[in-house]
Amino acid sequence: MKVDGKPMRTIWVEPDGRSVGIIDQTALPHRLTTARLTTLDEAAHAIRAMLIRGAPLIGATAAYGVCLAVRQDSSDDSLDRAYAVLIATRPTAINLKWALDEMMAALRNRPRAERSTAAYRRAAEICEQDVAINTAIGRNGLPLIEAIAARKKSGERVNVLTHCNAGWLATVDVGTATAPIYLAYDSGIPLHVFADETRPRNQGASLTAWELGKHGVPHTVIADNAGGHLMQHGLVDLVIVGTDRVAANGDVCNKIGTYLKALAACDNNVPFYVALPSPTIDFTVVDGVAGIPIEQRGADEVASMTGRTADGRIETVRIVPEGSAVANYGFDVTPARLVTGLITERGVIAAAPAALAGAFPDRAGKAE
Amino acid sequence: MKVDGKPMRTIWVEPDGRSVGIIDQTALPHRLTTARLTTLDEAAHAIRAMLIRGAPLIGATAAYGVCLAVRQDSSDDSLDRAYAVLIATRPTAINLKWALDEMMAALRNRPRAERSTAAYRRAAEICEQDVAINTAIGRNGLPLIEAIAARKKSGERVNVLTHCNAGWLATVDVGTATAPIYLAYDSGIPLHVFADETRPRNQGASLTAWELGKHGVPHTVIADNAGGHLMQHGLVDLVIVGTDRVAANGDVCNKIGTYLKALAACDNNVPFYVALPSPTIDFTVVDGVAGIPIEQRGADEVASMTGRTADGRIETVRIVPEGSAVANYGFDVTPARLVTGLITERGVIAAAPAALAGAFPDRAGKAE
Repeated sequence: MKVDGKPMRTIWVEPDGRSVGIIDQTALPHRLTTARLTTLDEAAHAIRAMLIRGAPLIGATAAYGVCLAVRQDSSDDSLDRAYAVLIATRPTAINLKWALDEMMAALRNRPRAERSTAAYRRAAEICEQDVAINTAIGRNGLPLIEAIAARKKSGERVNVLTHCNAGWLATVDVGTATAPIYLAYDSGIPLHVFADETRPRNQGASLTAWELGKHGVPHTVIADNAGGHLMQHGLVDLVIVGTDRVAANGDVCNKIGTYLKALAACDNNVPFYVALPSPTIDFTVVDGVAGIPIEQRGADEVASMTGRTADGRIETVRIVPEGSAVANYGFDVTPARLVTGLITERGVIAAAPAALAGAFPDRAGKAE
Repeated sequence: MKVDGKPMRTIWVEPDGRSVGIIDQTALPHRLTTARLTTLDEAAHAIRAMLIRGAPLIGATAAYGVCLAVRQDSSDDSLDRAYAVLIATRPTAINLKWALDEMMAALRNRPRAERSTAAYRRAAEICEQDVAINTAIGRNGLPLIEAIAARKKSGERVNVLTHCNAGWLATVDVGTATAPIYLAYDSGIPLHVFADETRPRNQGASLTAWELGKHGVPHTVIADNAGGHLMQHGLVDLVIVGTDRVAANGDVCNKIGTYLKALAACDNNVPFYVALPSPTIDFTVVDGVAGIPIEQRGADEVASMTGRTADGRIETVRIVPEGSAVANYGFDVTPARLVTGLITERGVIAAAPAALAGAFPDRAGKAE
């Protein structure tokens, strides 16, 4: 998407043809900073320390992490080590495993001399495929927004609520939850987005608000606590969120707090949609609530907050008393019964086993 | 309650017999600071700028605000001005109106020469009444915790989740939601509290965690987003929250985000209790969701966060991009159907019109 009029992606190969450029998202929204990854460990660090985040972008970065490893050492041992190091960075992200498996399949049975070139080619394909999938998600989700707009009086905006960041910053480009939003906005539909700030890491306030603002989409940042009140009073027309993993039964794992918004949507008859590329579906997990492991992250993310002081310095401040314990669950699982539909690259489908297996028989079959 | 072993209240008359001392809660949890109020305007500022907060404490502070006004000028005009200035400080808090009405009733028909003494006497009574009510709430809520403890295996803790601060810092002493918790803890029941941080003002992280810690109660601070996940996985035995206003139909107005926790409790069969002193009941509001006005507060509370830097300075940092709009709804209303029971000074009652009117016929009658 565009940043101050200039097209940009979240990840790219630098002009040297080897090192990998990324937007360092930890500096947003206050500074647009890029970083250059040159080794496997730098790629793993970028994922672990969340310089990049978002399920599809984690997958793309892991793919390039394999490239960087293979470029230095194209042996089987190096491949195995790259897989092991990268898979351990973020346990919840299913795309991470998908992307690594794709890379291994492309490289394993290839002569060592060809592996580096093949790796960069496959990683680039994974990136292009992500953009193509997200564009299709946008096309498939657009009619949902158009239908609401058609019921509005002239001048009334369609109000979309989203949680966390499933925007272009979470993908290679376009985004998942934002794909229908950008498409609707670009096609002239009056539209407004409520962006949950999304504590503890504030990806909504710092990333979703930033990218919507840079693209010109009207939006309002709210505390995560506010969504229920807004829905109760008719101020939200639909919810669209992303996901880190969808189970075979349609249960949706996404950023902590998503489940609370789904409950509020259900209680107020607000449609609750989840946008996802099909690599996010994990057909090996039969029951999402019971079976998806939930990553626990460091206490500092809850105990502290980072932002910009009035005089422009970036500071981290502690907001919890010394001596208080802190728990930091990264994700929760929204039961399929609360999900109105899944917006995928193959259309909007029900969050139900048969619908998922029917839409993606190629992937469902493999898991059995 | 105790702070580092020393008994303390949130509000008191200073040794000069005239000025009013308060804990400046905006400095917590990093510093325990007190402030001295000597004029009506200082009292109004303390309420408006939330040096003190919590429905019962707002009422007590407003009562002393009338004292400070009357001490300077005991005329009817001065009384009217004090009422007008104080009632405008926080539109949602019903105790504010209750306390002001009590003060006016005690002073209006009294000779000017007696008004100052009568005002301080009535304000002190309001404070003592608050402590007595909260102690009764504690006694009435204790059996709920005891019953859960009786079902636990030896050594297992009762896990209580609370939102915002309805602790002794929200009252004159003891607290409302915390009253059963402190009583259970003091009686030796193994207990642990999950404290929602409660964005945007973080009263849970900064006040509830602080007061629980100072009293020795084991607790864990969590992001507001986490409660649904905890309940889904059996990690919460009951929820107890406070309230700023309960409507005649049992709908509960409380800090923004309470409704989302009530939905999660309902979805997971976790009991959801609201602790309240009866002055919090507003029998003039028939339908809480439709009828209780929701205060909108300044954007800065959402756009910024204040805390302590590593080297001990208190800093405010901005966390939302420049140019993004921000909305800040202070409260939401939880429908009565989601409330398991109301813990009042007269017992635990159903959140329903007949139960409320039956338990408080004196107050219900007045509203008709």
